[in-house]
Amino acid sequence: MSRYWSDFVNRLKPYVPGEQPVAGQKLVKLNTNENPFGPSPRVLAALKAQLDDSLRLYPDPESRQLRGAIAALYEVEANQVFVGNGSDEVLAHIFNGLLRHAEPVLLPEVSYSFYPVYCQLFGIERVDIPLDADFKVAVGAFRQPNGGIVVANPNAPTGVCLGLAEVEQLLRQNVDSVVVIDEAYIDFGGESAIALVNRYPNLLVVQTLSKSRSLAGLRVGFAVGQRDLIDALERVKNSFNSYPLDRLAQTAAQAAIEDREWFQQCRSRVIANREALTLGLAQLGFEVLPSAANFVFARHPEHDAAVLLAALREQGVIVRHFRRPSSIAQFLRISVGTESQQGALFRVLENLIPGH
Amino acid sequence: MSRYWSDFVNRLKPYVPGEQPVAGQKLVKLNTNENPFGPSPRVLAALKAQLDDSLRLYPDPESRQLRGAIAALYEVEANQVFVGNGSDEVLAHIFNGLLRHAEPVLLPEVSYSFYPVYCQLFGIERVDIPLDADFKVAVGAFRQPNGGIVVANPNAPTGVCLGLAEVEQLLRQNVDSVVVIDEAYIDFGGESAIALVNRYPNLLVVQTLSKSRSLAGLRVGFAVGQRDLIDALERVKNSFNSYPLDRLAQTAAQAAIEDREWFQQCRSRVIANREALTLGLAQLGFEVLPSAANFVFARHPEHDAAVLLAALREQGVIVRHFRRPSSIAQFLRISVGTESQQGALFRVLENLIPGH
Repeated sequence: MSRYWSDFVNRLKPYVPGEQPVAGQKLVKLNTNENPFGPSPRVLAALKAQLDDSLRLYPDPESRQLRGAIAALYEVEANQVFVGNGSDEVLAHIFNGLLRHAEPVLLPEVSYSFYPVYCQLFGIERVDIPLDADFKVAVGAFRQPNGGIVVANPNAPTGVCLGLAEVEQLLRQNVDSVVVIDEAYIDFGGESAIALVNRYPNLLVVQTLSKSRSLAGLRVGFAVGQRDLIDALERVKNSFNSYPLDRLAQTAAQAAIEDREWFQQCRSRVIANREALTLGLAQLGFEVLPSAANFVFARHPEHDAAVLLAALREQGVIVRHFRRPSSIAQFLRISVGTESQQGALFRVLENLIPGH
Repeated sequence: MSRYWSDFVNRLKPYVPGEQPVAGQKLVKLNTNENPFGPSPRVLAALKAQLDDSLRLYPDPESRQLRGAIAALYEVEANQVFVGNGSDEVLAHIFNGLLRHAEPVLLPEVSYSFYPVYCQLFGIERVDIPLDADFKVAVGAFRQPNGGIVVANPNAPTGVCLGLAEVEQLLRQNVDSVVVIDEAYIDFGGESAIALVNRYPNLLVVQTLSKSRSLAGLRVGFAVGQRDLIDALERVKNSFNSYPLDRLAQTAAQAAIEDREWFQQCRSRVIANREALTLGLAQLGFEVLPSAANFVFARHPEHDAAVLLAALREQGVIVRHFRRPSSIAQFLRISVGTESQQGALFRVLENLIPGH
């Protein structure tokens, strides 16, 4: 704290991301839901072709080619697409530009822990809506007066997914406020609500290239919605940073979006590994929530989550543990890995949980 | 406008960056102060070495290696360095985290036109302090009660620079508020105030790699100050976007900071070309303000700036014109170019301004 700080700074409780080990550390990294497989070779080729003097020039502030590629993939107009420096930045602009209203924002009580941080940053009240008994987002409970709703689908850190009919129910229940569907993990087993944007003026869908496109290292996210919602985000963005996406990020993201074949192969491999991970954990006695994401959320009836976390860490395997709320305190979130990473995980777990 | 927008969105008047022509357009681009020379070959080599599967992994959220390199260059501690996605993002976090107070922010009336946009975005009152008769920042006039001061040095779009003694005068006059010195162009002829940060707890110096390091395309900026100021920025950043700098931007920026020889050569060439540009314009009858930047600010007593701008544009040469305030409405801002770009500029100008 300092006399120079703006008042609100002292009250902020910043988001804490999962550990990023420094290069060279030999860890089995299953803690931040990166894709276990690398990006498309076309991405690397496109990047290589761009390593020249053009880096001295500002990027296109409007990311026109990238937005065009996203629009073509999802069959919308380019002016229905907003891009940002990771979906975290996109979400920040959404909270600021579309969710700051007199009524509170409604969030699932268990969800991406950055959402409450944005509420704090922008001075937005929030109401947490408990999950239902199956750890699923309780769609029917999102009915009170609100200034917006944000739901991750599949939800994080549970991996549990809503169907499009349930998303439509949310939209119909809340026509007067923006409903944000954060689809960071949708490509691993859900159905995207982008198909609904032209029918629902209150729908904004957020996606990222960090997961299914294997580009966490380049920070590209986007939102799709009707044009007036996108215009609000453009106004906020152009009052914050004219050039949020650098030249290489734009190039890589466009190539990743355009290589549909690599995307399909990669996602199939992740889904296959998720099924193997789920099965292996179940055989060790874990309860595993049904996941449509590239991670699973699991608890063991006889082993404390914090103890398992620490024991795994000691053996060089890092996974994620959320202590709050108490309903999830006994779960570990384990990212889907390569066959070899998952093999390493199970070698450690089989020692920790003998007799299964 | 839309019923879904947060109230303030409708009132925003976003910043408008200079034109970025689409690839392939043959324009002599002297409008956004990019470096006319490309980045260090070491930057390109470092980037090339990083084009692999590691792009699937999140970058270091704390940019430790890059901050270490900047700290080593300026002989400060790494925790005195804050980095962001271009100095525009760094400035945005500064306005939000350090300049939102009861008293207004003081700005030079003629300066970087993004500053008033940040004031709007964060609901900060401002007072514009007129330049002195020589178009210099009137240091003595920054004495009224304030919640912070932001001065670009060299100033934009004038190019006129304050000496360190004048910066110290500003700091001593305003010990109760943060004084931000935005040194985007300092390497082309000024003396950096980073040398003063350990003596003035209210000083925050902002720089960018977009100009003297030829990396506008990669969006990296930083701030240097005492640790409590940097902590405020970290708190805001970690409540907004954990990973503002992607892997390639961190790598490129570090290599650019470390290649001091390239930096020196490149800056000497820019300074030499600026002197040639200034001389050539003077010979055509322009009044050219003394510039310590990689651009010049010039007006012609007999030729209207808007007319010249349009005529240059028609011949494929783009420069920048600011209509307001009226004191600068007859000036054009012309970026320093390569010898060949400046040759093209003068061929057009000699036709437009005959008889000199």
